[in-house]
Amino acid sequence: MITKAQIKIIRSLHNQKGRKEHNKFIIEGSRLIKEALKANYSLSQLYVTLEFSTNHQELLDNCKKTAVEINEIPEQELNVIADTESPSGIIGVSQIPKKMELNTVDNNHVLYLDHISDPGNMGTLLRTASWFGIEHIALSPNCVDIYNPKVVRSGMGAHFYIHFHTNVSLNELTPTHTIIGADHRGDSRIERVGSPIALVLGSEAHGISKENQEFIQQYISIPKMGNGESLNVAVAGGILMEKLFTQK
Amino acid sequence: MITKAQIKIIRSLHNQKGRKEHNKFIIEGSRLIKEALKANYSLSQLYVTLEFSTNHQELLDNCKKTAVEINEIPEQELNVIADTESPSGIIGVSQIPKKMELNTVDNNHVLYLDHISDPGNMGTLLRTASWFGIEHIALSPNCVDIYNPKVVRSGMGAHFYIHFHTNVSLNELTPTHTIIGADHRGDSRIERVGSPIALVLGSEAHGISKENQEFIQQYISIPKMGNGESLNVAVAGGILMEKLFTQK
Repeated sequence: MITKAQIKIIRSLHNQKGRKEHNKFIIEGSRLIKEALKANYSLSQLYVTLEFSTNHQELLDNCKKTAVEINEIPEQELNVIADTESPSGIIGVSQIPKKMELNTVDNNHVLYLDHISDPGNMGTLLRTASWFGIEHIALSPNCVDIYNPKVVRSGMGAHFYIHFHTNVSLNELTPTHTIIGADHRGDSRIERVGSPIALVLGSEAHGISKENQEFIQQYISIPKMGNGESLNVAVAGGILMEKLFTQK
Repeated sequence: MITKAQIKIIRSLHNQKGRKEHNKFIIEGSRLIKEALKANYSLSQLYVTLEFSTNHQELLDNCKKTAVEINEIPEQELNVIADTESPSGIIGVSQIPKKMELNTVDNNHVLYLDHISDPGNMGTLLRTASWFGIEHIALSPNCVDIYNPKVVRSGMGAHFYIHFHTNVSLNELTPTHTIIGADHRGDSRIERVGSPIALVLGSEAHGISKENQEFIQQYISIPKMGNGESLNVAVAGGILMEKLFTQK
């Protein structure tokens, strides 16, 4: 069961203010819950409908092996706490992990996201970074909150594998990383570098922010063969990650 | 000015049924209208608010050089005909171009979209294809309508440069093209081919459809270095288009 007070808390997690206050976020849908289990990601509570638990016995059994508290609740209450309009019968709540020290990133490639504000693009970038084995993502101030339910959904489980470093200034990475900025004025190839790479992606509307531009050591671009002002930032990010972070 | 009957017609263009009936679609926002002008794309009507036309005199002057009929209308009426919640003061209406014969595609690379249903992904794929100079896109039955307003918006002007071939069966391309399917079981490189390429992208949920699988000659994949079940289809499409359609 679920109390009115719990409903209020979970609904507050739809907004950044509530997430900050309770230090929790929502993980919605069976696909994400399965991915969280696979990654041994710690869930605090699970809310499921009777119908869901009847039809997904194996998933529920796997959940029961962990420390998660499982609550069976009526469908109308699940609809109230859900962020989506048609939730699939299961919603998890998890603690927001502690902010990591940036020095943990020293020997790893990093994706640095500079004022990325669209939740769908943010989630897709996290999903793509996770695919290419990027385990550390640094975010400038004023990015969309990575624990926004839309970001979590379009991240498709990337949140369970990635270490996030929020409110990072790019100059914090200059001692340890080669800073490569994505920009249409750049070259289509980069010079080989010894140190790990920090790939910087700016917003579609404004590009890499003024305060970060002075720290960019090389610019990389994606050749335009046809038409258009720009590429979608998540697509551009995917193309550049494949270029920079896979062995050829 | 705008009549009630016109309002009704334009609102009907938000849905596929209305677009089919009137053979028209909506182009919303100054960025898209500018791109249409740049591409010499033919607009039938433009609806603008007084405020917009006062502040965008140059754009309006450029529009007046074309055959478009320009109507100044009150903001509340623009809001009624708009698909977005905060339209930027200008909405265009254009004829849907005639369906092209598939033989016009003979000597060109083609992107074949197989049951792509999400409007945002569809628009982003069109935008990316246009960037990489792909001028012909073939669509399987049951793709989201390319003239859906959300597809047009996320296409960012690609619609004005691309020839669309709808309801195409993949076997229609086998005589002229090397058919390459995107699939995680594929190789990360393809064998060099003499004929133009048809790159086939399937839906995230179901991959390339059963009826098309038999026509795939080679599969190509994007190496996974980390975690995740799959990539977003627009990101995967971008990575593969860059790989296949740019000179190295």
